[in-house]
Amino acid sequence: MTEAEFLATLRALPLHPGARDLRDDAATLGELVLTTDTLVEDVHFLPTDPAGDVAWKLLAVNLSDLAAKGAVPEGVLLNLPLSEDGWDRAFLAGLAAALAAFGTRLIGGDTVSLPGGAPRVLTCTAIGRSARAPARSGARPGDQLWVTGTIGDAGPGLAAARGEIDSPDLRDAYRRPRPRLAEGRALGQVVTAMADVSDGLLIDAARMAAASGLAVTVRLEAVPLSGAYMAVKGADRAARLSAVTAGDDYELLFALPAGVAPPVAATWVGAFAAGEGMTLTDAGESLPLPGRLGWEHDGGAGVAD
Amino acid sequence: MTEAEFLATLRALPLHPGARDLRDDAATLGELVLTTDTLVEDVHFLPTDPAGDVAWKLLAVNLSDLAAKGAVPEGVLLNLPLSEDGWDRAFLAGLAAALAAFGTRLIGGDTVSLPGGAPRVLTCTAIGRSARAPARSGARPGDQLWVTGTIGDAGPGLAAARGEIDSPDLRDAYRRPRPRLAEGRALGQVVTAMADVSDGLLIDAARMAAASGLAVTVRLEAVPLSGAYMAVKGADRAARLSAVTAGDDYELLFALPAGVAPPVAATWVGAFAAGEGMTLTDAGESLPLPGRLGWEHDGGAGVAD
Repeated sequence: MTEAEFLATLRALPLHPGARDLRDDAATLGELVLTTDTLVEDVHFLPTDPAGDVAWKLLAVNLSDLAAKGAVPEGVLLNLPLSEDGWDRAFLAGLAAALAAFGTRLIGGDTVSLPGGAPRVLTCTAIGRSARAPARSGARPGDQLWVTGTIGDAGPGLAAARGEIDSPDLRDAYRRPRPRLAEGRALGQVVTAMADVSDGLLIDAARMAAASGLAVTVRLEAVPLSGAYMAVKGADRAARLSAVTAGDDYELLFALPAGVAPPVAATWVGAFAAGEGMTLTDAGESLPLPGRLGWEHDGGAGVAD
Repeated sequence: MTEAEFLATLRALPLHPGARDLRDDAATLGELVLTTDTLVEDVHFLPTDPAGDVAWKLLAVNLSDLAAKGAVPEGVLLNLPLSEDGWDRAFLAGLAAALAAFGTRLIGGDTVSLPGGAPRVLTCTAIGRSARAPARSGARPGDQLWVTGTIGDAGPGLAAARGEIDSPDLRDAYRRPRPRLAEGRALGQVVTAMADVSDGLLIDAARMAAASGLAVTVRLEAVPLSGAYMAVKGADRAARLSAVTAGDDYELLFALPAGVAPPVAATWVGAFAAGEGMTLTDAGESLPLPGRLGWEHDGGAGVAD
């Protein structure tokens, strides 16, 4: 079955009210925010990625979901495979560094053996606290769409990690994303909707609009690109289309009423309106939507949430 | 590295106070109890086990940890692989049945693709509420050791699941364990220490004694065996030694002050005293300890926690 069918079946199970219909970055339980993500070797990371970077990414992608709910991390549970001595040691050293960098602690977990030759599968469940936990579904007509940081680095970053292009900055963007925890806490108090950009700016914006029962316009020319990205891909329309569909950015995408300035550095990239669907413009010109808005999880290769 | 080395390194990381030094069945966060367990195909279940039974077992082993902390389930997060159509459908049907049987709900999760041919890896994180959450480490000198239900069925149950012996009852004990949720809630109010028997009665009793800073005596002749077990293995000393080292029982092992009767059906199987280490007796005769007290997770085959 496709992931969409699988998810539809899960949604028909008895759901906790805090599950938010399995459509948000995270679940809520009182003031607690709960999220979990699994990384699979050869799907979400490369066998050649340094083990310490895999530990970093495992924590980062989960803490990014907490950031998107304005949450302060409380602790993480980790489900880890015993694998090969050198890899395990480097992984655990990277884990120590990442816990320190993100200011969080281990609260539980499980360690398992895998059959010989099986790809590593690693799960993190992160728990945070947020007084408000903005939903993906809270945007209102007239709200503007904003994004933190820059978009698109992880796409060519995967090529850099594979050695196909030479850019340590892009490679690190792919291997060591930085969850926007401080920004998320500040934004959590004021936004009407928020999500992290894990699958691609376009698809995550489309999901926010659909969840909010609105239409959204994205202004391609406004999408912020990094110097490292432009050095490799340029900044023309094709480069911008590639950036907004690449995924693995872990920036925060959020909605604010028109006229309200965000309390953190961010770029205005679009707006919500009554209606449905997505419109893509480039300097005022309406563009056809690309065939693929981002990662939909049905494929198995490359960068997936 | 061995699992013991791996765990020692994890314990040296920044730990949340609710982590209980990663030595208990579950972590605590206020009144919440958190636990997570991963099942790996060909390690914790057989590729030939029905998918619906795998769903049942995934929930059951986690809810058993909640039972051991006297907790009422609040919800589960599930990290699931997309695999093959028929398997996925049967798994999801089994999941619906298990959620209903255990009276709990889905609160979140993640769905991933695995590389072709990779063994399935499934994770459940269960959250419950318990006003008290008795620790594994709370036994006191003079306390008596008790266990619910019967011990040892899952050992020959694995052989039954492999078709090596014919016993549907034992096979089901292996495939569809029943977490002792109601018993755990009643016991949680009165016990001094509690754990579930996941790796074997002897090793789990030894861990409870070590965590409590005490010695423990286990009375082999008192260990309760099922009719199905005795029909296949008998009830002599060898059969009893096999039962107490087999694991995957998911019964509750607990300590109560001498003279206090448990509020649920249970069997008195031993006692704690000042000192350290384990003594095994059979009708008053002291026995040498078996070389292996249960599953220590370093092996990869068969029944492991």
